[in-house]
Amino acid sequence: MVTVDLAIFSVVDDSLAVLLVQRPDSPGEPYPGSWALPGGFIDVARDADLVACARRKLREKTGVVSPYLEQLGSWGNRRRDPRGWSVTHAYFALLSSDAIQLQAGANAAAVRWAAIGDDSTRIGERLAFDHADILAAAVERLRNKVEYTSLPAFLLPVEFTLTELQRAYEIVMGRPVEKSAFRTRIDSAGVVERLSRTRATGSRPAQLYRLKDRTNPVYFPRTFSPRS
Amino acid sequence: MVTVDLAIFSVVDDSLAVLLVQRPDSPGEPYPGSWALPGGFIDVARDADLVACARRKLREKTGVVSPYLEQLGSWGNRRRDPRGWSVTHAYFALLSSDAIQLQAGANAAAVRWAAIGDDSTRIGERLAFDHADILAAAVERLRNKVEYTSLPAFLLPVEFTLTELQRAYEIVMGRPVEKSAFRTRIDSAGVVERLSRTRATGSRPAQLYRLKDRTNPVYFPRTFSPRS
Repeated sequence: MVTVDLAIFSVVDDSLAVLLVQRPDSPGEPYPGSWALPGGFIDVARDADLVACARRKLREKTGVVSPYLEQLGSWGNRRRDPRGWSVTHAYFALLSSDAIQLQAGANAAAVRWAAIGDDSTRIGERLAFDHADILAAAVERLRNKVEYTSLPAFLLPVEFTLTELQRAYEIVMGRPVEKSAFRTRIDSAGVVERLSRTRATGSRPAQLYRLKDRTNPVYFPRTFSPRS
Repeated sequence: MVTVDLAIFSVVDDSLAVLLVQRPDSPGEPYPGSWALPGGFIDVARDADLVACARRKLREKTGVVSPYLEQLGSWGNRRRDPRGWSVTHAYFALLSSDAIQLQAGANAAAVRWAAIGDDSTRIGERLAFDHADILAAAVERLRNKVEYTSLPAFLLPVEFTLTELQRAYEIVMGRPVEKSAFRTRIDSAGVVERLSRTRATGSRPAQLYRLKDRTNPVYFPRTFSPRS
């Protein structure tokens, strides 16, 4: 039994959120009615490879065709599924929630966003299979990477202000960011490009930006580099 | 078809090296006589989980029971094995080569260390399946992590001098390291502890050290941290 599962993240109501689906209440299905990460079996006739399978499942649940998608790892053992030894390949995706149309499907009774609080295990506890472990690993990977990549920008719509970008970093990190240090770092790493338009806000128009590259994140330089 | 494959690294003859096994020359076996990363099918009766399977295969090939072992990712598609859609879970292991007894086994005609040069694809080109891709990803992961972890120390014997530790970093990075900056960083990260003995060398006795923790690597602090 080989499956692909997805931890799909976005910013919803000013919080980091993960997409959950409700397991069907059908005879023979494990964890009937429980919430779970979206995913399912690989279809060897349709899916050319693992990432194609992940993209298909993402498209079926959200309608999004080309999100940021990264392999998280694989979980396989004889305990995780009551039906026997099974393996899942987990991916995490970052999306702007305004691009999504949530769709309950044949194998999911309902779909919802669940806010990730300070303690990502709290929502994980109630998930089916070992999805609590997978979600915890996905949140940890995302939080580690926020320190040295442009990944939080992939949670935003295509056009955004620098205040919105800073807020995305703060939401993922769970702590405030100092504005001038943040802007210096984003500038020097060449993450964004300035657009020729502004957005009307409360007091004065805010400059709009977009990612220079909406496919690949920027990796910032690291500290430890014992160069000669 | 679900397998586990291993990129087992060590320092051999002052070079980073990866362990290769020769595929058997038997009827029905793909890539007869080709070199490949060690690995094989999961045995659902014996292996409680994926990492247990990886540890078993490592023990069978090298006799090493508890190396540094990390999941690298999974590769699955309909092209990588001529027998059909298949998936492999790849791990990478770091070992001291003096701890290893190489063992050809039932499913490997011969075993050898192959030096990784500046271009890791050069030895990869001749490998079976998609093991060239897996090896390239393993070398990239290791080289990325050397910048901010104590991982190169896991390639050394239990006791080592700081000169040997510096050389392990240089071998993985493929470039020289400035001695005083290196020692400051290793000291401040709390990677090693001083032993009460020295080793006789050419000119004067060299102080011996060991890792404070031989199970988990130390992660050094990162640059980008837009704290308040």
